[in-house]
Amino acid sequence: MTVPILNRRDLDFMLHEWLDIGALFSRPDYADHSRETIDAMLDLATRIATDKYLPHFKHSDRTEPTLDEDGVHVLPAVRDAVRATAEAGLFSAGFPAAQGGMDLPATAFWASMGILQAANVSTSGFMMLTSGNARLIATFGTEAQIAAFAAPQIAGEWCGTMCLSEPQAGSSLADIVTRAEPDGEDEFGPRYRLRGNKMWISGGDHDATPNIVHLVLAKVPGPDGRPVPGTRGISLFIVPKFLPDNRGRNDVVVAGLNHKMGFRGIPNCLLNLGEGRFTPDGRAGAVGYRVGEIGQGLPIMFQMMNEARIGVGLGAAMLAYRGYRLARQYATERTQGRTAATKSRVDTPPVPIIAHADVKRMLLAQKAYAEGALALVLYAGRLVDESRSAPDGADRHNAEALLGLLTPVVKTWPSEYGLAANDLAIQVHGGYGYTRDFDVEQLYRDNRLNPIHEGTTGIQGIDLLGRKILRERAATLAHFRGVIETTAAEAESFAEISAFAAPLRDAWARIDAVIAHFLALNDDAAALAQATPFLSAFGHAVVAWIWLDQAKAAAQASSDAPEPDQPFYAGKIRACRYFFEAELPKVTTWLAFVAQLSDVASAMPIDQF
Amino acid sequence: MTVPILNRRDLDFMLHEWLDIGALFSRPDYADHSRETIDAMLDLATRIATDKYLPHFKHSDRTEPTLDEDGVHVLPAVRDAVRATAEAGLFSAGFPAAQGGMDLPATAFWASMGILQAANVSTSGFMMLTSGNARLIATFGTEAQIAAFAAPQIAGEWCGTMCLSEPQAGSSLADIVTRAEPDGEDEFGPRYRLRGNKMWISGGDHDATPNIVHLVLAKVPGPDGRPVPGTRGISLFIVPKFLPDNRGRNDVVVAGLNHKMGFRGIPNCLLNLGEGRFTPDGRAGAVGYRVGEIGQGLPIMFQMMNEARIGVGLGAAMLAYRGYRLARQYATERTQGRTAATKSRVDTPPVPIIAHADVKRMLLAQKAYAEGALALVLYAGRLVDESRSAPDGADRHNAEALLGLLTPVVKTWPSEYGLAANDLAIQVHGGYGYTRDFDVEQLYRDNRLNPIHEGTTGIQGIDLLGRKILRERAATLAHFRGVIETTAAEAESFAEISAFAAPLRDAWARIDAVIAHFLALNDDAAALAQATPFLSAFGHAVVAWIWLDQAKAAAQASSDAPEPDQPFYAGKIRACRYFFEAELPKVTTWLAFVAQLSDVASAMPIDQF
Repeated sequence: MTVPILNRRDLDFMLHEWLDIGALFSRPDYADHSRETIDAMLDLATRIATDKYLPHFKHSDRTEPTLDEDGVHVLPAVRDAVRATAEAGLFSAGFPAAQGGMDLPATAFWASMGILQAANVSTSGFMMLTSGNARLIATFGTEAQIAAFAAPQIAGEWCGTMCLSEPQAGSSLADIVTRAEPDGEDEFGPRYRLRGNKMWISGGDHDATPNIVHLVLAKVPGPDGRPVPGTRGISLFIVPKFLPDNRGRNDVVVAGLNHKMGFRGIPNCLLNLGEGRFTPDGRAGAVGYRVGEIGQGLPIMFQMMNEARIGVGLGAAMLAYRGYRLARQYATERTQGRTAATKSRVDTPPVPIIAHADVKRMLLAQKAYAEGALALVLYAGRLVDESRSAPDGADRHNAEALLGLLTPVVKTWPSEYGLAANDLAIQVHGGYGYTRDFDVEQLYRDNRLNPIHEGTTGIQGIDLLGRKILRERAATLAHFRGVIETTAAEAESFAEISAFAAPLRDAWARIDAVIAHFLALNDDAAALAQATPFLSAFGHAVVAWIWLDQAKAAAQASSDAPEPDQPFYAGKIRACRYFFEAELPKVTTWLAFVAQLSDVASAMPIDQF
Repeated sequence: MTVPILNRRDLDFMLHEWLDIGALFSRPDYADHSRETIDAMLDLATRIATDKYLPHFKHSDRTEPTLDEDGVHVLPAVRDAVRATAEAGLFSAGFPAAQGGMDLPATAFWASMGILQAANVSTSGFMMLTSGNARLIATFGTEAQIAAFAAPQIAGEWCGTMCLSEPQAGSSLADIVTRAEPDGEDEFGPRYRLRGNKMWISGGDHDATPNIVHLVLAKVPGPDGRPVPGTRGISLFIVPKFLPDNRGRNDVVVAGLNHKMGFRGIPNCLLNLGEGRFTPDGRAGAVGYRVGEIGQGLPIMFQMMNEARIGVGLGAAMLAYRGYRLARQYATERTQGRTAATKSRVDTPPVPIIAHADVKRMLLAQKAYAEGALALVLYAGRLVDESRSAPDGADRHNAEALLGLLTPVVKTWPSEYGLAANDLAIQVHGGYGYTRDFDVEQLYRDNRLNPIHEGTTGIQGIDLLGRKILRERAATLAHFRGVIETTAAEAESFAEISAFAAPLRDAWARIDAVIAHFLALNDDAAALAQATPFLSAFGHAVVAWIWLDQAKAAAQASSDAPEPDQPFYAGKIRACRYFFEAELPKVTTWLAFVAQLSDVASAMPIDQF
């Protein structure tokens, strides 16, 4: 039996009953929208995902993009999917009407993108990167740059990339060596010639769209003719594959494709800029137009990077979600063994495996991980909408700050626990789940990328603890603690969940204590050595809050909901209970380790490994 | 730089300084052995692993076995590896001299097999299965069966398989439907004709050796002509691919190959028995010779199954071990970023990533998992040797009972935490680790099978808690508790590790309390619903003991060891400290959940998922 890509009932619950996106429709930014327009958009995304993304899920894993002298070729099915997405208006939906978009709230835009990701995360990458690229140009570019480079992406006619890493500088952007030499100016702004190599470029070349817009970090030589050291030497450039005004092919070529464990449907490239294969405007060097000021490349790029981080979290959540739904279906169809009640009755037929306690445990854990992860990402989407449209400026500011605080969690938690969910999805399938005949092994391989790209888990931990908490002395966290306390207080009104208010408060009080300790300590190196386990604890405590807040909405809604809706709400409350019984206690364990400030690893000499 | 397959210094420490296998050499069973013979065997295994197993590690992943009308074909390199292993005497080494073997202690035999597994776990599967198959026949077969079917396997001329699962009966052997009809008797014993399908048969067909010996579970019709229901209806049969005395091809054919996420170098087959493609002795039906009595198939098969479970644990440990060594090497060579001390000095060169605290943490965790897992499996090998050769009958009995208690842990803990180690090995490599250009992604894919085959983690949990603890009212556990207490008491004499005695005792006291609660409760269904988290807790507490016992040996040895040896011992003690600081506290968290006897999952109605 075909399993629907996701549980739409659940998505509707999250968007409307929990996050109340209906409240946005009365605001000027989103005045054209209503429950009906949102439903229509999600229906459309589901149709495209089902008809255009899902059918080549396995095929594009088995048949990777190819590279020849004309560049990279993707499967026709991938090209069709990108075109269908553009024609449906999904590329543009999240942009303001003034930019050719539909003013769709970010929460709903991400929900629609998530539907595509659930069906085929590789193919959805084209849209995700294009959206972030176009939004960056629309925010920081000149009018001419927006018209020439953002508009075709918003329309879905071209795709975009982000070119940050280099072979010798993966996570450490301070060490990039791609150079940008001044080359005059034209209608698109200050013009440069770029030379260097960019690594891990998803969609770095392909024939899905006729042009590609690269956003490239590079260094402009300083007064001494040498690149300025560190990140403050970085500037940002638009480097199109084909130059506007029919000036032909730019000097950007694919030097090689990376062959990955998963995520195989979207080409991942090593790009050479300025090696002289092409001679735009008559000479070698990749033509790039600067966006923003010299030296402002990294702060500007962070807009796209943050959007990509949230997109990674969303993709990870959707892989988990799809794996959960597949495992759930399999467990109702596959029969095996007997329950404790019938195990001595060998003459009775085997039971569906969902009857076994341990299979139920594995499914409930997946539900808690997958639905918790998706809810977390959609909450981030709601913060984006709030930061754009809240009537009160302080609310807009708070939403933006909270989004910044939570971004490392929104990126990491779904990546780590989405993978754990996919691991359980395989386990529920037994030996079959380990074969390529079933989808769950591919979901697992695809999801393994997510703790790495757009900043590894280790880097997210340092971002959270260092930049987002200690550097601002926990100011935004103080606001967030108020939000958490509101949920705890409200949960106390509902008998089914009132018991969870105290453990949630306790977990957060322990986090407060660790942070106070770190602030008093004033030794960043010692504190940041604990950043990853701290992120584990913080992330779990955030998701416990997300679950309690969802359970509160479910408890509220169930009181006057019709009978057929009751199992859905009861399932939400049960997943919350599972999280509080089996998962939240881990926070205490991690924090106890973090609080020790142990140097067991950090002081280990190399010759002891 | 090429990384040695494993750290031989560490293996020697485990075998000699920790497990004191030298004590075995004075016993009659192992009197032909000495440190020199063991060293020579490990050197030999290392040479074969390096020359014959490692070179086709990636190749046999990319080029899976093929099936045509002649059967399954493996790569020439795989065939060469199997032949070289046989010629070196590694197949036979672990068997008694009377059976054509070398009387090698099990501890050393497994160490040598582990070296092959570290190099190429798929190809090592031929030897592992053959060893277990031959040992079963040697134990339970008649002289004629041993001469005809075990001897060629011990010599490494033929390979063996185990045929238990069927497509409709994976883990539930009670439900197998392969039938065995009596067909007279000949020199090899009672003869039967088998008809049915066997699933997940590793090495089920291939051209690596000229013949294959299948051990097949099937049901003999009862007095009413129908198979006896349940596991007591199961008997065991030797079903060779080619019949002895030049009677030609048996009626066993490959119906299909399973295409897996990893473990791709060894064919995994669906076998059809008795479909009539071949007509041995003139008619259809697979000829099988019964081993043991009718209805005794499962108890007999458990010998091979237990050996295979330990072999799976060993393979998982070695995959972790190799991943750790590769990640360690990569971290010393790859430069990236700066440390806390130099981060503002962007003009300084990037540091090797092993300088970063979080990379050290990931390496130390891998060391704790990989070396802990290998030590655990070798300890099991030591118990085998003790159960065979201890002068005192009570010691032999205790060793055998303790091996039975620990087998589910020896199978599961390395499988779960070996995979976690490989996950960290990828993470240390960053994006490169996710590509197929590096070995770690394949180690991870290979290792993902280990929590599934030879009994899933869920089944091991039920075996541990139900069969091995509750059913015998924790009798063997009481003996094991004494062993643990001895380690704790001895550890108190060493300043570096004395602090760990109390937390080890505390963890085990908590396990005792949970078990006492379960025994008093007398509700197996409720207790067994907690079997998997119980196994998590129990396994971690076992490995904490393994680490403390290793650290004790290291502390002891370091006191009069030369200076160059000190970092090795200090590394052992540090890994122990890491396990006690970061891992052991998880036991408390799991046990608290287990003790709740929560029905949050087990009572969840299907419509709430």
